[in-house]
Amino acid sequence: MMKKILHFDKNAIKAMEKRYRANFINSITGYKSANLLGTISQSGVENLAVFSSVTHLGSNPALLGFITRPTTVSRHTYLNIKSTGIFTVNHINTSIITNSHQTAAAYHEDISEFTATGLTSEYLNKWKAPFVKEAHIKIACEFINEYKIKENGTLLIIGAIKEIFIPEETLCDDGWINLEIADGIAINGLDSYSAPKLFNRFAYAKPDKKPSSILNS
Amino acid sequence: MMKKILHFDKNAIKAMEKRYRANFINSITGYKSANLLGTISQSGVENLAVFSSVTHLGSNPALLGFITRPTTVSRHTYLNIKSTGIFTVNHINTSIITNSHQTAAAYHEDISEFTATGLTSEYLNKWKAPFVKEAHIKIACEFINEYKIKENGTLLIIGAIKEIFIPEETLCDDGWINLEIADGIAINGLDSYSAPKLFNRFAYAKPDKKPSSILNS
Repeated sequence: MMKKILHFDKNAIKAMEKRYRANFINSITGYKSANLLGTISQSGVENLAVFSSVTHLGSNPALLGFITRPTTVSRHTYLNIKSTGIFTVNHINTSIITNSHQTAAAYHEDISEFTATGLTSEYLNKWKAPFVKEAHIKIACEFINEYKIKENGTLLIIGAIKEIFIPEETLCDDGWINLEIADGIAINGLDSYSAPKLFNRFAYAKPDKKPSSILNS
Repeated sequence: MMKKILHFDKNAIKAMEKRYRANFINSITGYKSANLLGTISQSGVENLAVFSSVTHLGSNPALLGFITRPTTVSRHTYLNIKSTGIFTVNHINTSIITNSHQTAAAYHEDISEFTATGLTSEYLNKWKAPFVKEAHIKIACEFINEYKIKENGTLLIIGAIKEIFIPEETLCDDGWINLEIADGIAINGLDSYSAPKLFNRFAYAKPDKKPSSILNS
């Protein structure tokens, strides 16, 4: 297995056909999170879009970040966040992969991706941005800041986590959330969805100790 | 299933015990990539550390980013990158999860995590930072820039992808890399490793078309 290794240098990457390179480089950093970002415009049009770049930034204060490009199909997400100051993050699960992927189509700004793709918007705890009813894990965020990545014109958006809704059976005694029980999904590249199976969980690593599993503890 | 939903607001999150909150918030954004970052100091000491925040930033130019905190155990990674300008990104696979997790132990700066954890350093194509021989997917990066996230003092490090080594059987005709064939892993929280199984792959989404699978095409 894994006998023949291919090597690509920077020139070979640069020379790739555009779509080929997008598939290649979007896969090469490994698995990514699979979330639907819910927003609403000032005039009340709901928007929903898949993002694979939502990443933990820190726990205290609880912050997350994601990357966006203001000129792509997901620009409505960005514009709504900037005008309302809020958004929701909703985990994709195996039951809603097809609908979720379809939110990436270039719908007109007056069309709600909820309506177009058959997902259901819901409003929880008076939060003014829509959640995805079918998602099991839901997060309400306030826009905090944006950093322009000058190397390619993308933006890192920083969100402060304000509300979290999770199924009780996914939360363990030590605060860890079992994403497999939440039927969670990971993204491979631009267009592929994988269902992870828990392999192992370890105790805090120390130099003088061998790694020990803490599964089922 | 998923009948009882727990709700946590910002005050409940803030009031959590520190380690509980770290587990909780590190899990809440979903699955993360699982990579070992390889670096070397000016005096020749190799360093290896798990990072779960490596994220695709753009394909042309090919860029990735990751989050680090200059004061944690992985500060040697940061210091080495700043002094040498280079690093490697190596995918964790199921065979090396235990060794990889152990790199997170607080070894003295004179100790190589390769030696301490039983992983093998290798040097490919005259790149001066060490790769992990046991990894199937390996990336060589040059440090390009860093952005200080003032909200919590972390840094977003930007790397330019210069060389890529991947097994031939993982690369599809359209540039997509099948991470399951590469035996890839995703991280759930701080300390848990999951093995994803490919669920579906879709054609480019369009408003007037239903989503169509392109698996095995």
